[in-house]
Amino acid sequence: MRTSYAVGVDVGGTRIACGLVERKGRIIKDAKRPTPKSGPFSVVDAIIELAEEVQAGVQSSEVAGVGIGLPAQIDFLKQSIEFCTNLPLAGVDVRSLVMSRSRQEVTIDNDGNLAAFGESRYGAGLGTRDFVMITLGTGVGGGLFIDGEPYRGSRGLGGEIGHMVIDLDGPPCPCGGTGHIESYLGRPAIAARGREAAQGAGGEAILRAGGGSADAVTAEAVVIASNMDDPVAREILLEAGEILGRAFVGLVNLLNPKLIVVGGGIGEACGFLVERAAEVVASESLAGRRDVRIVQAELGNDAGILGAAALAFDEHDSREGLHR
Amino acid sequence: MRTSYAVGVDVGGTRIACGLVERKGRIIKDAKRPTPKSGPFSVVDAIIELAEEVQAGVQSSEVAGVGIGLPAQIDFLKQSIEFCTNLPLAGVDVRSLVMSRSRQEVTIDNDGNLAAFGESRYGAGLGTRDFVMITLGTGVGGGLFIDGEPYRGSRGLGGEIGHMVIDLDGPPCPCGGTGHIESYLGRPAIAARGREAAQGAGGEAILRAGGGSADAVTAEAVVIASNMDDPVAREILLEAGEILGRAFVGLVNLLNPKLIVVGGGIGEACGFLVERAAEVVASESLAGRRDVRIVQAELGNDAGILGAAALAFDEHDSREGLHR
Repeated sequence: MRTSYAVGVDVGGTRIACGLVERKGRIIKDAKRPTPKSGPFSVVDAIIELAEEVQAGVQSSEVAGVGIGLPAQIDFLKQSIEFCTNLPLAGVDVRSLVMSRSRQEVTIDNDGNLAAFGESRYGAGLGTRDFVMITLGTGVGGGLFIDGEPYRGSRGLGGEIGHMVIDLDGPPCPCGGTGHIESYLGRPAIAARGREAAQGAGGEAILRAGGGSADAVTAEAVVIASNMDDPVAREILLEAGEILGRAFVGLVNLLNPKLIVVGGGIGEACGFLVERAAEVVASESLAGRRDVRIVQAELGNDAGILGAAALAFDEHDSREGLHR
Repeated sequence: MRTSYAVGVDVGGTRIACGLVERKGRIIKDAKRPTPKSGPFSVVDAIIELAEEVQAGVQSSEVAGVGIGLPAQIDFLKQSIEFCTNLPLAGVDVRSLVMSRSRQEVTIDNDGNLAAFGESRYGAGLGTRDFVMITLGTGVGGGLFIDGEPYRGSRGLGGEIGHMVIDLDGPPCPCGGTGHIESYLGRPAIAARGREAAQGAGGEAILRAGGGSADAVTAEAVVIASNMDDPVAREILLEAGEILGRAFVGLVNLLNPKLIVVGGGIGEACGFLVERAAEVVASESLAGRRDVRIVQAELGNDAGILGAAALAFDEHDSREGLHR
């Protein structure tokens, strides 16, 4: 049966957001709460309660299922959580726990893959069968779309664009490696550049955006200062755009995509960072590949909910033998 | 009709090799000659003559077609040569020229993609639907196999693994970029390290392998010295293996492949370089992906011919509506 709604759940390190989503991508009801910190079952309870809340008054036969995006390394085929830095969910069978209580079909996926899924179905990737998604946030994630479907690799663990090596002698990465894209472009890296600048000449605007204390400067403070045309803040983010562009050169030469979509809080807030990356790609990629479009994501804060709901629709339809 | 043979042509910067290949991958007749240097038509003539030579005595209805691998950037969908560093073939319609004279179906592809094709059908990739191929030679190329087929991206230009950025401040690459994998691992880069070492303390073995002149030291001389357990030569190639491993960390985190196949003259001659790369992947990749197997290619010098023939079989069979 062709259902009308799906539930999308976006589990982040600081808050869980949930929405009831129509097939065309409209969120008709949503709810959120801070991510509980008292252990894995409190997270699962919160997911279940939020999902019930947004489905109140809707017939369960009308709901395709529940999609859950997690900030974790997920073996998609086994639906298991292999690794999770910010939440105590590694090894916890979130899917089964939610399924047994909600009596609905549940599918989990990595949040980067779901951001790509959402943009593919409802956003900047609509109509493009092959594209690369990158999310610039606290972590740097992403997903690959190949031939209209997410490509996750042999165990479903692919898409970790943030953990490609971009520098042989680069700084440590939160994952334990060094010189990864995330070690330059994650929020902590940008914040560190901002704190350093706030203490030096010309750093007044960044310092102000950080509330007057260099130690309190965040990546967002750098973005805010740059939006007020502070040259020091702009320089930090243009350098980040340059590095992002160098990473894209490799992806373009490897994958020859039509489109790269840049999302995540930092990617969506900084148009000129994305433009700088596009300039680098246009000048350094191999011939014939420079027609790739590099654009900002379109779904903003709703990307996680919409991607998770799109996944739930897809899984439902393939169980039922329906095709999009 | 299910044909018995295909012609594979491997066009290199220094020689053109051609073979008549059975479906199971046995080369039953081959021929080669130096690559003509007197312009594009002399190259096309050589291809046609070699193809005729290996087909002598075989009924043309028994031949699926001709596959041609070129050291060039190829728009696979248009079958056009976009860019070619070592031969004057950019913009030359090699496919049509060979087709009109030979009256056979002809398909051209990038040599890195065809090395992957050959290993997929007849070598180290047999039975693996998703793998990455990298070829370490004068250039560094490669190809992606996804779901049993070569993945070439939106215009057919994908697979250029050698032109991913691995270092932000790296040396110039022959393509015009900087810090690309090829700028560390191509024969010229390894030869340069060898020449430098040949002039310093402990460089005697490399100097000898280069015939007594530091200026004459090639990448092969470094390999020869390393095979005689010269510690300086081994160190150069272990460092190359380390850098290759760092590149693979990114590919493994991005694509989560089951298998990486290392081919090309340097890759096939240096088992310990490939082992070093595998050690780096095992220690730096994200959790859950470290089960990737990293192996040497199996087809050696025949890789180009076999890959081109495999392509010709595949194209023939899909024209005829046959499935493997």
